[in-house]
Amino acid sequence: MGTVAFQTDPSRYRHWRLDVQGAIATLGMQVAEDGGLEPGYALKLNSYDLGVDIELADAIQRLRFSHPEVRALVITSLRDRVFSAGANIFMLAQSSHAFKVNFCKFTNETRLYLEEMSRESGIATLAALNGTASGGGYELALACDEILLVDDGSAAVSLPEVALLGVLPGTGGLTRVVDKRRVRRDHADFFSTTAEGVRGARAAEWGLVDEAVPRSRFQARVAERAAALAAKSDRPAGGAGVELPPLRRRASDAGIEYGHVALAIDRARRVATLTVRAPREPQPSDAAELLRGGAEAWAITAWRELDDALLHLRANEAEVGVVLLRTEGDPAAVLAVDRMLAEHRADWLVRETLLLQRRVLKRLDLTARSFFALVTPGSAFAGSLLELALAADRSYMLDDDAGANAVVLSPLNRGLLPMGSGLSRLQARLAHDERVAAALAREASFNAAEALAAGLVTFAPDEIDWDEEVRLAVEERAAMNPDALTGMEASLRSVGPETLETKIFGRLSAWQNWIFTRPNATGPKGALSVYGKAGQRPEFDWRRT
Amino acid sequence: MGTVAFQTDPSRYRHWRLDVQGAIATLGMQVAEDGGLEPGYALKLNSYDLGVDIELADAIQRLRFSHPEVRALVITSLRDRVFSAGANIFMLAQSSHAFKVNFCKFTNETRLYLEEMSRESGIATLAALNGTASGGGYELALACDEILLVDDGSAAVSLPEVALLGVLPGTGGLTRVVDKRRVRRDHADFFSTTAEGVRGARAAEWGLVDEAVPRSRFQARVAERAAALAAKSDRPAGGAGVELPPLRRRASDAGIEYGHVALAIDRARRVATLTVRAPREPQPSDAAELLRGGAEAWAITAWRELDDALLHLRANEAEVGVVLLRTEGDPAAVLAVDRMLAEHRADWLVRETLLLQRRVLKRLDLTARSFFALVTPGSAFAGSLLELALAADRSYMLDDDAGANAVVLSPLNRGLLPMGSGLSRLQARLAHDERVAAALAREASFNAAEALAAGLVTFAPDEIDWDEEVRLAVEERAAMNPDALTGMEASLRSVGPETLETKIFGRLSAWQNWIFTRPNATGPKGALSVYGKAGQRPEFDWRRT
Repeated sequence: MGTVAFQTDPSRYRHWRLDVQGAIATLGMQVAEDGGLEPGYALKLNSYDLGVDIELADAIQRLRFSHPEVRALVITSLRDRVFSAGANIFMLAQSSHAFKVNFCKFTNETRLYLEEMSRESGIATLAALNGTASGGGYELALACDEILLVDDGSAAVSLPEVALLGVLPGTGGLTRVVDKRRVRRDHADFFSTTAEGVRGARAAEWGLVDEAVPRSRFQARVAERAAALAAKSDRPAGGAGVELPPLRRRASDAGIEYGHVALAIDRARRVATLTVRAPREPQPSDAAELLRGGAEAWAITAWRELDDALLHLRANEAEVGVVLLRTEGDPAAVLAVDRMLAEHRADWLVRETLLLQRRVLKRLDLTARSFFALVTPGSAFAGSLLELALAADRSYMLDDDAGANAVVLSPLNRGLLPMGSGLSRLQARLAHDERVAAALAREASFNAAEALAAGLVTFAPDEIDWDEEVRLAVEERAAMNPDALTGMEASLRSVGPETLETKIFGRLSAWQNWIFTRPNATGPKGALSVYGKAGQRPEFDWRRT
Repeated sequence: MGTVAFQTDPSRYRHWRLDVQGAIATLGMQVAEDGGLEPGYALKLNSYDLGVDIELADAIQRLRFSHPEVRALVITSLRDRVFSAGANIFMLAQSSHAFKVNFCKFTNETRLYLEEMSRESGIATLAALNGTASGGGYELALACDEILLVDDGSAAVSLPEVALLGVLPGTGGLTRVVDKRRVRRDHADFFSTTAEGVRGARAAEWGLVDEAVPRSRFQARVAERAAALAAKSDRPAGGAGVELPPLRRRASDAGIEYGHVALAIDRARRVATLTVRAPREPQPSDAAELLRGGAEAWAITAWRELDDALLHLRANEAEVGVVLLRTEGDPAAVLAVDRMLAEHRADWLVRETLLLQRRVLKRLDLTARSFFALVTPGSAFAGSLLELALAADRSYMLDDDAGANAVVLSPLNRGLLPMGSGLSRLQARLAHDERVAAALAREASFNAAEALAAGLVTFAPDEIDWDEEVRLAVEERAAMNPDALTGMEASLRSVGPETLETKIFGRLSAWQNWIFTRPNATGPKGALSVYGKAGQRPEFDWRRT
C-alpha cells in the first residue's frame, strides 16, 4: 500500500468532470477503469475507490470557494445507463480492515459535506440518476437534496450490500433512507435485502427517489429542478471566487512541514506532534480584503494544511497512537482573525472560511487517535485554535511561575464552529450551561489556575511536575489497546444530542467495523471475500449475535 | 454451555437479598463465589455473571409488582469494603463472542429497567457504595438516581476495562458518565483510562458520585437520602401487591408451550414461530379486579411468557435466524383488555402492567433476529398485539377473498407502549405524522387492502401468491449473513430520535461488539485473554482503526 495523497486539483482529475454553467454546476462521474489507487482491481461501471472520492471532495471544496455564482449542483454520470455501481468490491476485498474503515470514514465525511454545503452555503444538490445507482452510488444520491431516477424499465436504485456482500451499506445509506428520506422502515428492510433494488414508480412511491422520469423527459426535468433549487439560494449574484492553490508541503520520514502547520512523527514512541502556528503576516481586516488576498489568508491556508495533516495521519501513519496538539505564535493575531470572521460572517467567502474550519475540526473529532493538547508558554491557544484543545481528549497546561502561560476565548468559541452534535466544543466539554456562560463572560485571557478552574484545561501541572506527568500520561496512553481507545474516544466525544451525522458515524460505522472483522464477511469463505469468484458461494456461521 | 433459564424467584436467589422496610427496599449484593452459571470461574469480590443479573432483573420486577408500598430502592453490598468488582473477567475470557454480546445486552436492559422504574414507577434508586465499585459494579451504580461513596481513603469508583482488559465498559458506563451524570468529557477520558479509578472528594467533585461520605456517617446518610428520595414518590401508601407465580412452561426439543404463548423451532430451516394467543377467559374489567385476580391476568402473564420466550431464543437458540410472529384468537378480547388498561392507567398496578408490556416489546426491538409478522385469518393483531407486527422488520397480511382477515388499533397504539427512541411503533413505522393521524382516526378494523394502504402492513399477497411469496421471503432472509442482518436491523429499527437508551445500545454496544472480535482483546495475546495470567502481558497490533 503506497502513501495516499489527498491533494489534487481539476487538472489532475481522472474520474470527474466539473462543468459550471452560470448558477448550475454539474459534476459528471466517469471513473477511469484503470485509475485505481492500487493495482488489483478495475473501476468498472463507475465503481469507486478512495482516489475517486478524494477528487469528489476536492471538487466540492473548490466549487464552494472558487465559484460563488453557483447555486445548485447536479451530480450525474457521464456513462450511458449506469450512474454508479458504488464502492469497488474487489478493492474492498483486498483491503486491510483499517483501510476499509478509513475509506468509509472519508467517504462518509464527503457525503456529509454535500449536505452541509446545501444547508449552510446555499448550493443545493440534485442527483440525476441516468442509470442504476447501486450501493455507494445510491448512497451518494442519498446525500443530495433531491433524487431523479430515469424511468426506463431497467434503471434501479439499490443497496445490495447485505444480500450480495454480507456487509452494510457503508456511507450512511440505511440511516439516510429512514431518517432523512423517511422511507418506511419495513420498506427499507425489503429494499436493503433485495440485491436488484427497486425501479421507477415504486422507488418514487416508497420515497427512495423523488421522481421517476421517462428518459425522453429526463434532461429537461433535471434542468427544471436544478433551476428551481438554485432559485432558493442566497449566494451572491456574480463576482470572482478564490482559487485554492497547492499547499506548501515538505514531506520527509520525520513528518510534514507546511506553511503554518507542522506534523512531526516519533515512530519509536508512536507519538506525533501536530503544531499550528498563529499568523505571522498581516491578515485581511474585512471580507473584501479576504477576497482580494485569496486563499493565502491564514484563516484558509492554515486550516487546509491542518486538514491535510489529519488525513495523512489517518491514512499513512497507522501506528501513531497519540497526537500532541500544540500551537505557537501570537494569540492576538489569532484573535484578530477570529474577530474579523465573526464580524463579517454574512459574507459568502467568510462563511465558507468558517465552514472550512468547522469541517477540519470535525475531521479531528472523528480521527481515531488520542489527542492531548499541551499548553505551554509561547503557545497560541486562542479562539479558533483553542478549539483544538477543546477537541482534544484531554489537555495539560503548564502552570508557570511567571503566570505568562495563557489561553483566551474569541467569538468563534460561541457556537460558530459546532461539533456534529450541534454543540459547541465548549458546551460539549463543560457539560453545564452555567459553566459555559461563565467562561464566555470573560474577555481577558486565563492563566493556568484560572483555565483549570474554568474547565478550559484538564490538568495544570507546575514546572516541577510537568515533564514527568506529561511523559507518563503519553506513555500510558500509547500502551493501551488501540481498538478500545477508538471505541472509548468515539463514545466520549459524542456526548450530547445525536444528529443524522453522529448517527451515521456512531451507529452505522461501529456496526460496519464489527461486520468487517467477522469471518462471515471477510474470512476465506466470507461473502465479501468470495464475491465474484466463479463457482464459490459464501459459507456462514449461522449463530446470530 | 448449558441452557440458560431466566425464570427464578427470591427463594432461589443465591446472590442478592431483598429486604423491604416500609417505603424503603434494600437489595444487598453478596455473590456466591461458587454460584456461577458455568464451571471455570469463581465469582470473587461480588463480581457477576449472567446468573447474578438474572436474579437482579427478577428482584426489580417483583419489587414493582409485589411491593406497592416501596418508594425507594437502595442497592448496596453485603460484603465488607467492596461493592462489586463488575462482570467476572474469567467468565468473559472463556465465553463465546455471541454469549458476551448477549450477556452485555441483558445486563444493559436490566440497568435501563432501574432507570425506567425510577422515572415511570415512582421507585427512586440509590447506590450505596460501601466499598470499591469497579467496571460493571460502577455501571450498576450509574444506573441509579444517586450514588453515595464511602470516603475511607481506599474505596474508589473505576472503569478499568480499557486500561486492564482492552475492552469497553459494557453496560453503558461511558455514555452514562458524560450524558447522564454530565461528567466533563476530559475528566471522563482520564477516569476511563485509569485502572485504579478515583476516590473520595475528587469523585464527588468530578460528578462521578453525588457524595463521598465518611464511613462513620455512611449508613445514616444513606438512610437520610433514601427517605428523601422516597418522599417524592407517587406510589400508593399501602395495600397489597401482586405475586408473580412461576410461568406455566413446557419445554421440549420442538420449542416451548406456555399458557398464552408458543415458541416452535424449525431447526432445519433456522426459523422459529412465536405465537401469542388472545385471552380466552374473562379478564378484569377495572384496576381493582386486576389487583384481585393478580398476575394470572392475560395482560401480565402473556407478556411475561413472551419475554421469557424472547430471552430463551436469544440465549439458547443461536442459529434461529428468522422469527415468524403470529397471533391467534379473538381480537375483541385483546381490545377489551387494552381499553381497560388505557382507562385505568393512573392506577399503580395498571401502570406496572403497561410498563411490563413496554419492556417486553423493547426486548423484541433489541433481539438480533429477523422478525416477520404473518397476519392470517383467525389471528388477533389488535392493539397491543398489533405492536408485534409494527415491531417486526416487515409484515405479510393475507388478502383473503372473504375479506375477513383484519387488524385493528387500540388506545395502546397511541404512544402508551413507546420504543426506546420515545416514538410509538406506529410513528416509527409510518414516519409521517399525517399517516399516523390517519391510521389512528379509524376505530374500525382494516382489511388487507385497507391495512396495506394505511401502511400497517408491508405486503398483502392474495391466496394464490401467499404461500410462495412468504416461503421465498423467509428462505432468502435465513440465507443471508446473520451479522450483516443484525447491523442492518439495528440501524433501521433505531429510526428517529436518539436517547440515552438508544445511544447505549446503538453506539456503545456496536463498538463493544467490534472490540470483542478483535485479536487485541480476545486473540491469544489479547488483553482480555491474558488478564490474570501470571507473567503474561498483552501484545497489541498498534495500527489504529
